[in-house]
Amino acid sequence: MFERLCIIGAGLIGGSVALAARANGLCSNIVAYGREADAPNLQTALELGVVDACFTDLEPALAGADLVLIAVPVGAVTGVFRQLRPFWSETAVYTDVCSAKGSVLAAAVEVFGRAPANFIAAHPIAGAERSGAAAAQADLFQQRRLIITPDAGSDPSALQKVQAFWQAMGAWVSLMTPAHHDTVFAATSHLPHLLAFALVGLLGRQDEQREIFKFAAGGFRDFSRIASSDPTMWVDIALANRAEILPLLQEYRAELSLLERMLQERRPDELFQAFSYAKNARQRYLDQLDDYNNDHDSRNTV
Amino acid sequence: MFERLCIIGAGLIGGSVALAARANGLCSNIVAYGREADAPNLQTALELGVVDACFTDLEPALAGADLVLIAVPVGAVTGVFRQLRPFWSETAVYTDVCSAKGSVLAAAVEVFGRAPANFIAAHPIAGAERSGAAAAQADLFQQRRLIITPDAGSDPSALQKVQAFWQAMGAWVSLMTPAHHDTVFAATSHLPHLLAFALVGLLGRQDEQREIFKFAAGGFRDFSRIASSDPTMWVDIALANRAEILPLLQEYRAELSLLERMLQERRPDELFQAFSYAKNARQRYLDQLDDYNNDHDSRNTV
Repeated sequence: MFERLCIIGAGLIGGSVALAARANGLCSNIVAYGREADAPNLQTALELGVVDACFTDLEPALAGADLVLIAVPVGAVTGVFRQLRPFWSETAVYTDVCSAKGSVLAAAVEVFGRAPANFIAAHPIAGAERSGAAAAQADLFQQRRLIITPDAGSDPSALQKVQAFWQAMGAWVSLMTPAHHDTVFAATSHLPHLLAFALVGLLGRQDEQREIFKFAAGGFRDFSRIASSDPTMWVDIALANRAEILPLLQEYRAELSLLERMLQERRPDELFQAFSYAKNARQRYLDQLDDYNNDHDSRNTV
Repeated sequence: MFERLCIIGAGLIGGSVALAARANGLCSNIVAYGREADAPNLQTALELGVVDACFTDLEPALAGADLVLIAVPVGAVTGVFRQLRPFWSETAVYTDVCSAKGSVLAAAVEVFGRAPANFIAAHPIAGAERSGAAAAQADLFQQRRLIITPDAGSDPSALQKVQAFWQAMGAWVSLMTPAHHDTVFAATSHLPHLLAFALVGLLGRQDEQREIFKFAAGGFRDFSRIASSDPTMWVDIALANRAEILPLLQEYRAELSLLERMLQERRPDELFQAFSYAKNARQRYLDQLDDYNNDHDSRNTV
């Protein structure tokens, strides 16, 4: 499918793309570029056979690459575009893996004047608790969603190649606008992460005063799981998508104020209505999830 | 251990206690009492062999019972105490399963003048998504925590019997004050449920405008799970423990305002500090959970 894949940033996602691309025979040659500070991780990637070669100089890393994957935290994307610009190839295809797409495209506009037609923004909905090349898994994207967010200027052939690349690694690809992507993920991922960090932070400080965690109920483990996410990565995401997250946070606080008043004024009927609406809404979400999965399962078996 | 167990309310928890008590040979005879409206569920309990007999009259249900388990929603406890009062036995042991203990003890004080010495308040940290006698499981309390919240007036012999009863069904029993119980569960269970209901409610209304749920990331399923809890039960719990929940809700909203300001003013260092503190606090919680489980595992195998 591609001759040479150059991965900018051989972390969990970059490393997993390398393994998946190799396992599925999508690239003859796979190399990684990273900063000097990342040299030990690059060395690990090389030793584990995740990539064929590693570079801390960009130019040799890019030489002959017909697919360039930007797999760095979203806060580092502008810098990467700046580094790539002098070597930008019109014939290669460029893509990324960031969780906030508006800011990635804004970074492209900032550096290039407008987003290059052969840069196709994408977001794999996959991750793991560990990080770094040592945690990479060839099946990380199998039966996971991947969102591609083309814009009006995207080259259809580059788009088609990126789509085929991810599908060949087992991902379920959807296309949507960058704005819709950022709205959806602000609501279903970024806001929940902030809520979980805030809750576990609050409870952690209380736990320092008197035992709280020791007796926590079982549901707390699931509910708080995302508060164990990588802080650096989440600072980046939260800032990158703040335009979408901030109004949601305000609406959410207003929602809590309503519940607070219902409790204060002992209004069981209103509480019941609010809780029931939420329970039904979650059922709607689960039904959609089932439909989606059944859909994809049947397509995969046909 | 007991001659006759009378269960007030043969729902998921009451029914599971019946099955577990029988499976572990703790009671020779197990009966259930419920309201007329609950007759179909009582009939199911009888047909499935969950209980030996069912009553919609209280007096015959209680005849000869040396253990009475109050397994009704916390909002119904005052009414049950009022019904029990004329038939209260000094020699039987009474216990309950409610998630908020202060309000249960307040109900006892309201009805009896002071909490009867042979009423031992308890809270099994167990549940399931389904409800009713048909969902009852004999192993629901195996390796689950159970909190007993005695007060100064509790009869030590009744306390010992309730403790032995739950331990014999496989529960890990801890004792704490009712106030500490309500603080811990307001923080680690009641507040999270309100937050989840509020989030899924907010997102549900957005989803009616434009597709949100269809593309939700994997973590959302875990984070939102508790929003599928039974609304009636949670209205009861939220109102029963509102004195503990309300100040926490306010603190939580203040916490969100802080995060909001950090986002608005683009303060990556402060966000990083907040997220890292939360991540570390969750690790402390997980470590305690492991310690606790290892402790109990080793006790169980020794």
